[in-house]
Amino acid sequence: MSVATEAAPRQGLIGAESLLKRYPGNPIIPRNALPDSDSILNSAVVRFGDAYRGMFRVDNQNRDMLIHPGRSADGLHWEIDPRPVQWQCRDSELEQIVYAYDPRITPLEGRYYITWCHGYHGPCIAMGVTDDFEKFELLEVVLPPFNRNAVLFPRKINGRYVMLHRPSDNGHTPFGDIFLSQSPDLIHWGSHRFVMGTAGGWQSTKIGAGPVPIETDEGWVMIYHGVLTSCNGFVYSVGCAILDLDQPWKVLHRTRRYILAPTEPYEMVGSVPNVTFPVACIHEEKTDELRVYYGAADTSVCLATTTLRELIDFTKEHDMLKS
Amino acid sequence: MSVATEAAPRQGLIGAESLLKRYPGNPIIPRNALPDSDSILNSAVVRFGDAYRGMFRVDNQNRDMLIHPGRSADGLHWEIDPRPVQWQCRDSELEQIVYAYDPRITPLEGRYYITWCHGYHGPCIAMGVTDDFEKFELLEVVLPPFNRNAVLFPRKINGRYVMLHRPSDNGHTPFGDIFLSQSPDLIHWGSHRFVMGTAGGWQSTKIGAGPVPIETDEGWVMIYHGVLTSCNGFVYSVGCAILDLDQPWKVLHRTRRYILAPTEPYEMVGSVPNVTFPVACIHEEKTDELRVYYGAADTSVCLATTTLRELIDFTKEHDMLKS
Amino acid sequence: MSVATEAAPRQGLIGAESLLKRYPGNPIIPRNALPDSDSILNSAVVRFGDAYRGMFRVDNQNRDMLIHPGRSADGLHWEIDPRPVQWQCRDSELEQIVYAYDPRITPLEGRYYITWCHGYHGPCIAMGVTDDFEKFELLEVVLPPFNRNAVLFPRKINGRYVMLHRPSDNGHTPFGDIFLSQSPDLIHWGSHRFVMGTAGGWQSTKIGAGPVPIETDEGWVMIYHGVLTSCNGFVYSVGCAILDLDQPWKVLHRTRRYILAPTEPYEMVGSVPNVTFPVACIHEEKTDELRVYYGAADTSVCLATTTLRELIDFTKEHDMLKS
Amino acid sequence: MSVATEAAPRQGLIGAESLLKRYPGNPIIPRNALPDSDSILNSAVVRFGDAYRGMFRVDNQNRDMLIHPGRSADGLHWEIDPRPVQWQCRDSELEQIVYAYDPRITPLEGRYYITWCHGYHGPCIAMGVTDDFEKFELLEVVLPPFNRNAVLFPRKINGRYVMLHRPSDNGHTPFGDIFLSQSPDLIHWGSHRFVMGTAGGWQSTKIGAGPVPIETDEGWVMIYHGVLTSCNGFVYSVGCAILDLDQPWKVLHRTRRYILAPTEPYEMVGSVPNVTFPVACIHEEKTDELRVYYGAADTSVCLATTTLRELIDFTKEHDMLKS
Amino acid sequence: MSVATEAAPRQGLIGAESLLKRYPGNPIIPRNALPDSDSILNSAVVRFGDAYRGMFRVDNQNRDMLIHPGRSADGLHWEIDPRPVQWQCRDSELEQIVYAYDPRITPLEGRYYITWCHGYHGPCIAMGVTDDFEKFELLEVVLPPFNRNAVLFPRKINGRYVMLHRPSDNGHTPFGDIFLSQSPDLIHWGSHRFVMGTAGGWQSTKIGAGPVPIETDEGWVMIYHGVLTSCNGFVYSVGCAILDLDQPWKVLHRTRRYILAPTEPYEMVGSVPNVTFPVACIHEEKTDELRVYYGAADTSVCLATTTLRELIDFTKEHDMLKS
Amino acid sequence: MSVATEAAPRQGLIGAESLLKRYPGNPIIPRNALPDSDSILNSAVVRFGDAYRGMFRVDNQNRDMLIHPGRSADGLHWEIDPRPVQWQCRDSELEQIVYAYDPRITPLEGRYYITWCHGYHGPCIAMGVTDDFEKFELLEVVLPPFNRNAVLFPRKINGRYVMLHRPSDNGHTPFGDIFLSQSPDLIHWGSHRFVMGTAGGWQSTKIGAGPVPIETDEGWVMIYHGVLTSCNGFVYSVGCAILDLDQPWKVLHRTRRYILAPTEPYEMVGSVPNVTFPVACIHEEKTDELRVYYGAADTSVCLATTTLRELIDFTKEHDMLKS
Repeated sequence: MSVATEAAPRQGLIGAESLLKRYPGNPIIPRNALPDSDSILNSAVVRFGDAYRGMFRVDNQNRDMLIHPGRSADGLHWEIDPRPVQWQCRDSELEQIVYAYDPRITPLEGRYYITWCHGYHGPCIAMGVTDDFEKFELLEVVLPPFNRNAVLFPRKINGRYVMLHRPSDNGHTPFGDIFLSQSPDLIHWGSHRFVMGTAGGWQSTKIGAGPVPIETDEGWVMIYHGVLTSCNGFVYSVGCAILDLDQPWKVLHRTRRYILAPTEPYEMVGSVPNVTFPVACIHEEKTDELRVYYGAADTSVCLATTTLRELIDFTKEHDMLKS
Repeated sequence: MSVATEAAPRQGLIGAESLLKRYPGNPIIPRNALPDSDSILNSAVVRFGDAYRGMFRVDNQNRDMLIHPGRSADGLHWEIDPRPVQWQCRDSELEQIVYAYDPRITPLEGRYYITWCHGYHGPCIAMGVTDDFEKFELLEVVLPPFNRNAVLFPRKINGRYVMLHRPSDNGHTPFGDIFLSQSPDLIHWGSHRFVMGTAGGWQSTKIGAGPVPIETDEGWVMIYHGVLTSCNGFVYSVGCAILDLDQPWKVLHRTRRYILAPTEPYEMVGSVPNVTFPVACIHEEKTDELRVYYGAADTSVCLATTTLRELIDFTKEHDMLKS
Repeated sequence: MSVATEAAPRQGLIGAESLLKRYPGNPIIPRNALPDSDSILNSAVVRFGDAYRGMFRVDNQNRDMLIHPGRSADGLHWEIDPRPVQWQCRDSELEQIVYAYDPRITPLEGRYYITWCHGYHGPCIAMGVTDDFEKFELLEVVLPPFNRNAVLFPRKINGRYVMLHRPSDNGHTPFGDIFLSQSPDLIHWGSHRFVMGTAGGWQSTKIGAGPVPIETDEGWVMIYHGVLTSCNGFVYSVGCAILDLDQPWKVLHRTRRYILAPTEPYEMVGSVPNVTFPVACIHEEKTDELRVYYGAADTSVCLATTTLRELIDFTKEHDMLKS
Repeated sequence: MSVATEAAPRQGLIGAESLLKRYPGNPIIPRNALPDSDSILNSAVVRFGDAYRGMFRVDNQNRDMLIHPGRSADGLHWEIDPRPVQWQCRDSELEQIVYAYDPRITPLEGRYYITWCHGYHGPCIAMGVTDDFEKFELLEVVLPPFNRNAVLFPRKINGRYVMLHRPSDNGHTPFGDIFLSQSPDLIHWGSHRFVMGTAGGWQSTKIGAGPVPIETDEGWVMIYHGVLTSCNGFVYSVGCAILDLDQPWKVLHRTRRYILAPTEPYEMVGSVPNVTFPVACIHEEKTDELRVYYGAADTSVCLATTTLRELIDFTKEHDMLKS
Repeated sequence: MSVATEAAPRQGLIGAESLLKRYPGNPIIPRNALPDSDSILNSAVVRFGDAYRGMFRVDNQNRDMLIHPGRSADGLHWEIDPRPVQWQCRDSELEQIVYAYDPRITPLEGRYYITWCHGYHGPCIAMGVTDDFEKFELLEVVLPPFNRNAVLFPRKINGRYVMLHRPSDNGHTPFGDIFLSQSPDLIHWGSHRFVMGTAGGWQSTKIGAGPVPIETDEGWVMIYHGVLTSCNGFVYSVGCAILDLDQPWKVLHRTRRYILAPTEPYEMVGSVPNVTFPVACIHEEKTDELRVYYGAADTSVCLATTTLRELIDFTKEHDMLKS
Repeated sequence: MSVATEAAPRQGLIGAESLLKRYPGNPIIPRNALPDSDSILNSAVVRFGDAYRGMFRVDNQNRDMLIHPGRSADGLHWEIDPRPVQWQCRDSELEQIVYAYDPRITPLEGRYYITWCHGYHGPCIAMGVTDDFEKFELLEVVLPPFNRNAVLFPRKINGRYVMLHRPSDNGHTPFGDIFLSQSPDLIHWGSHRFVMGTAGGWQSTKIGAGPVPIETDEGWVMIYHGVLTSCNGFVYSVGCAILDLDQPWKVLHRTRRYILAPTEPYEMVGSVPNVTFPVACIHEEKTDELRVYYGAADTSVCLATTTLRELIDFTKEHDMLKS
């Protein structure tokens, strides 16, 4: 069998179909959604009652990296607070935040825990919590520099809280594996375990966890980003792995094929060309629809969808751990 | 108060409004304005009688970097000489120019002084002069390697000529501060002073002076470029500072927020993605309109406008020197 | 004489006319021509009887770099085999291919020899052969790491086979000259000779041979790529040289001006921005038309044309070897 | 007043007197103290009853980095076990040690806790414990990659255990500040705090904690190493700081002058030239003598002495935090 | 069992005993053996009738790297020709030698073949031949850039000549594996095979073949160098491997432990600190004595000995290929 | 003719004879000549009446780089002021000296002008003057960053003062050529000219002027340093050039062979291994003796001698400008 190219789109930059299907209204949040935003990107959203709440990475026209709360009735149309989140902070030492970016939100035991990359003498992991997305409490620096891309699991495992993260260096790190840490109290973390490292192709330079892992019968579904280094820079794509339910540092399946990669103009052009960076997902249990929110070109927030079933099947079908 | 994203432009790459407003006819000089040009960029213009003259950086299809004279009746429509400037040169040693780029023109004591980055055993600063944009005299190498982005003040200060410049290295320098030098005769320069260095955000990697400083009651208005290093390269934005009238190495105000940044397709895509590089401005005293000419994506010449009053007010309002 | 800019295209990114004229239907093979392709690029084609055959570099959605056979009746519309080429291999050691990219096809003594960059403990040069584009035999690793961009001459010279290639390093090599090697049997190569190195402008970082050299009365016409390093990465353009018929390591003429450079959206945006990479050409003897197939932005396959006569004349007119 | 050079040592490489006085029998442990050692360096010692025990970094002739136990009656003459320490390990995941180096020993609540840099998918901090230096239990990976130079305080502070450490990258890190972490149980660590960063001169590239901090009325006395980057590599010197007793992330005093630097042949020549690296100290309360054990040139173990009183006075006299 | 350090040498820099025993008269050729030599290092020697001949790398006081012939009656006392070797060369292209270093000499079919690193538009492998060490013929560039450390086997294997070599880059290459190539005629080389790559410890950065492999019943004995990167530069040690007699790209045994490493002052101090670089060996069949000639600190030529039997036994005992 | 090695020094590290002969009492100033000096190196001396004065680079035990005055009756035995030079400074801006190193002293029109590398927002060139070595006036920053190794000619040439210097970058610069600048008043400098660049061997990485040029009938004799990059760092050697008397940017002769290189223990071992760095010379007209003062291993001050006649003859004999 062969494929005739004749019917292919003329423009030539449109990518082949990937597992994740882009929302036609992309980007759902453009770079100029706030009057002084340079870009709005890599942001977390979560279901909140009948509606949605989010924590948005806003790079303003100082190119400060800040996190702003936001709200939505449908997960598609968002109001973003023009003021950055105001953390309540018990320890003045913790107020020395130079920057804050790439938040994740994990619903856990009835509260909403937020983890993000925090500039405290280097990029490290901070954690905060909110009950209502009105008041926000800054808990602690939970991992020392240099670290990024931390996200909590949505329940305790073996009696301890568990967090994925990516040790890094102090710049545009050219390496990076996914690790996991465990905690009795969400403040102190230890028993650090290696989860998975780089692999070939689109995930050959570094990888990092994205949305909150989703618990399924087959294991924890972890969507993650992978980076390839071309001769003109990093290319960020999206993949999926399934982790053991009880020993989540054990990888059961992992996609050799990406599930999304930058092929649309709004993903290939912008503040950082060639980026699709998954940060959050919302699973609609009735329909099994899985919405994946991702940053495009470090410039805007976009949406792509699949079903959880399709995602699991794809991950197992394209499993790089199969001999 | 919150901002609904619904009305935002679909394409998502359009930036929020910045202080400088782009001319709708951008780029005013496209890359192919000469039959053998690869790109026409980072160019200087000046009022000349009732009309305008300019010195244009033309990268030809050898990718030689050259400077061509040009003329215009309105500052918008330009004729560029297809032949590079022919320097009259007293010293044959000075004819060893490997390349010439990023010119500035300063009207000074009735003549037009041109400064540019000159390839003489490394990038250094050369100076030339013309009275009529017909004959051009090469004066001297006025600063040794490695240096770029030199521009003269339009009058003597404290009895000496003054020039801004940016010491650099011999490549795509990843650092750079603005310095100032002083001269009795425009040939010999000394009493070098530090003016200002990098700061956060869009100006965190390097900065360099742009157009000829504009004298106002509040000080010298200096538009400059600042560079941020993303994981996929440099991003060039535009800012403004106000320098002390008598001690121009003293910075009175400096924008923490950029006044222009690459968000249009012709700024984000081209020979060097994500560049807005200001080189010249023309102030219309009657209307107070300030036209800023800038290179876009190292590919074409563009125009953006504001008023001098608005620029000063903005610089003071967004002053990073305020506590 | 001067050139008015008014009539120039508004968008400003369109380049000035170059010697090679782009096919209006570009890209002729879009990135999504196969269901699981990420991109299809840098590919070789050859006349085969009344039709055409090709070897296509396909980067799939694993971002594996693979070579797929393809066929076409007219050289414009192509069917690409969805399965990578299956090499018949006498030596199991040779089956350790990690990747394969940027093939060239040389018709030689009635067979079709394929050379490409092969991942065998580093990028090196492998050679294979086919008679029918149905069965493919892997001959040998003909040059050890680190090497790329090898292409055979279409006949013996002075009793030996001759191959152009580019020694490199194990990454995105920031240097590279064209060398030539000689062989009695296509397997063993020696008498390695330097052909030409980098020069100014668009060919200042590295250069590498492209299509099979074309024999003419004036010498071997060698189209090649040249790379310039901007502050935001490599820019790949296309040039031409003419080599001595009997001593092909002697360069008779070489273009100082490029004959194609990335100025179209599909060349400036994609997996690797700003790439035009020539790999194959087909010369129509009757019309003298020369079709040059090139990879655009490491994303798609494109076509540009001239005549061989015009190419030779241009190379001699813009000869950088003239005083 | 002036200094005549005539009487100065002829050889010219002998350094001026520093606060720490070298033991005349240096190195106390030569590189060949074990039959298959390449070097014995950066090692920890501790008083154990009437005698001494130590954990020695031995690089064997494979150039594996290993830790061996050792014992001594006087702290000067040592027997080193020819077999590396055998860790008892509850979790087989933790047996994946690629290397182990630069141990510290902290007596704490009657047991001996050992911290060291552990190769587990990158350099990270592991902790173990012994009661008798016969049986050794591996507790956990207490800090994830990339980290080095961790040492525990000898008692709880504010109800939590406290550890100093130095976040790093995955190579010969060219940066590094001292941080502090806190723990309820020695396994889980959080509330990470910045203690101090690099400064000028000998401590301009990176710094890291050395021996167990010594509690005094004036605060915790912390001896540390600092690194300067010369054009021919790193130079490791020794300094001292005094930390607040209750808030040990607050630095009260810090030496601007080093207290030891590589000026002896055995410090300037060896596996890594120009290294003095302090790891342990023993304070003799009666005499106030303070013995500092340090690695020399990454090759041998040496000793230098002062009194605690002199060290504190020197630190306050040469305090870089004064005015 | 434990080892008391008391009896160990005071100076502390003397290394533990290694398999190779240094000749007490080291260095046998000091850096100043010629009136204008800066250093004499990495040199090849061979038995020649009842005497010895050698090819010596001499870096003169221009710091040109040259090869000089030399002779000796006993292999210990050498006369080095003050004039570099004069190559007879059929092809004037080959006279463009920029430098020549690190020669090996292989007796083969009654002649003496010399291979070395040759500066011809990059470091590559040249080959020459002599019958009498009076007249020397330059044969060809046998491997293109970038390559170093090539040495021929002393007989054909499976009907082809065989050569070990190490692909590299154009600088102080931070990587390097040993490859093997095959030739029908000593000029043309192909069927390139990977032999072995870097491993842990002293051989973790790069490795390269040293003396001519020695044929034994157990396989080809290949002495090689391995490099470790400390924070202050490369450290060159010596190891051994045994290759399959018929398929010499198959490694049967390989030392995990070095057999010599820089621990003497003349190895740790000099033009390049911390280098022991084996280049030649002479096996005395009657006594089984094996003399290994090595460069020390890129400054002088030294000698160390063992027996071939001990070397083979050691290599098998410390075999890193044993599980 | 051949050279027997037997009589050569056993230790093997002693270099062959070079043109400059070391003073047997080297180092004449050891690193510990002041109570708090870490090293004393790269220093300038000058005849002062019947005695000598000098400006000494002292790196103290903070590793601050400072300049101290000193005096001597014979040029061999020196008293160094334990206090750094106190500059009288008209402009408080100039007091922002971060460091000061590598001074030169030029007697000029009856005064003593001092030039050195000055840390003012980067390494740049400052100039001061003294009449008596008691009071010192800081004149100005005479060249902006980044620059090092500046030295004045001892008289005006063509009516202007002339200064040699070496543009650099902001770190351990891996490149560097010698330039020359001209001034009417010693404060303002222009008409910058390239003098000479790197060449092969010992001067392949960078070069810089050393002592004050000596006027002779044959031209200005300029002793300079050259740097080679080995795989373990920079090696600093010494060479000589002769410049045209009237157009001192024209090089008449230049040594291809070094006149001194690091081969003594005090040159190969120390703060920076393998450095001989010439800074000053004193010519005894009666005897024609030329004393060259140089820094050894960035650790001490040493002396080597020749005659001016021999130096000129050697420079012409080993002239790399001869075809």
